[in-house]
Amino acid sequence: MDLTDYVPIVSDFPEPGVGFRDITPLLAAPQAFRASIDRLEAACAAHPYDAIAAFDARGFLWAAPLADRTAKPLIPIRKAGKLPRPAAVEAYRGEYAEVRVEMHADAVAAEDRVLLVDDVIATGESMAAGIRLVEGLGGTVAACAALLEIGALAGRDRLDGYPVVSLLGKL
Amino acid sequence: MDLTDYVPIVSDFPEPGVGFRDITPLLAAPQAFRASIDRLEAACAAHPYDAIAAFDARGFLWAAPLADRTAKPLIPIRKAGKLPRPAAVEAYRGEYAEVRVEMHADAVAAEDRVLLVDDVIATGESMAAGIRLVEGLGGTVAACAALLEIGALAGRDRLDGYPVVSLLGKL
Repeated sequence: MDLTDYVPIVSDFPEPGVGFRDITPLLAAPQAFRASIDRLEAACAAHPYDAIAAFDARGFLWAAPLADRTAKPLIPIRKAGKLPRPAAVEAYRGEYAEVRVEMHADAVAAEDRVLLVDDVIATGESMAAGIRLVEGLGGTVAACAALLEIGALAGRDRLDGYPVVSLLGKL
Repeated sequence: MDLTDYVPIVSDFPEPGVGFRDITPLLAAPQAFRASIDRLEAACAAHPYDAIAAFDARGFLWAAPLADRTAKPLIPIRKAGKLPRPAAVEAYRGEYAEVRVEMHADAVAAEDRVLLVDDVIATGESMAAGIRLVEGLGGTVAACAALLEIGALAGRDRLDGYPVVSLLGKL
């Protein structure tokens, strides 16, 4: 099963000239969605981790089943203002706007090995912010995992020195 | 295991006087998180469904594992502007602001029985918008499922005539 068939490009979204990878056909195809989680679970097993940090919102779609399967704690990394308790915050310039992301300050224990999970690595800036959040709270990053990378944006270059798990590679 | 212990109230969030149910301790406790998905899966089995519609963002945390376990199609209901293809839209007055939510127009086939999944039923307005989206696209609602209801807000009253699955009941 070539999962790439399930993440077609939608042209000119969210703005003219941009080709957007649409993950919803993958979500709509149960065997493909399960296969993506199977592959995520298998690939991440090479990078031992104690907890899974998931990016709001689409990262939740892969991180939550992975947490269910592996019985690892699940840590949400949320857009600013969504977490109710004291949180660490990091800002970055996203593809389309400035973004602030937060993680509860007590979410990571010292030396926890944290797997970061998102759907897509684009510029890599959100993953890099996730790394700063985890390390700022005393944890270590086991790997940065995603369904795919946007090859033209070279996000992997922002993650130098960290293992990257990219199920479909650069698209 | 009393899952209510894992969703403590945080006072004065997101604004003074509001008690907010914090789901992150549940996410952080793998056996509790799994138990919540076990119970969701079991309770929803009484309401046969063909697809699972998940509310952005926290609904994804339960809907995605349920889709993984049951091999049902997963349909995201997203905040406006996030879906890349033609979408149906519904607006409602949320607890704190006006909200617009969208579902891809091709996400529901005629007569599909759709299970709506969110973390919390508060005012019930978002669930009601989800019902309008599903029915507007020709589907039927199998049930409205959530981890818990905010009893003081009586959201269930907005969902009269639809089955409600509420794992922890009114809190």
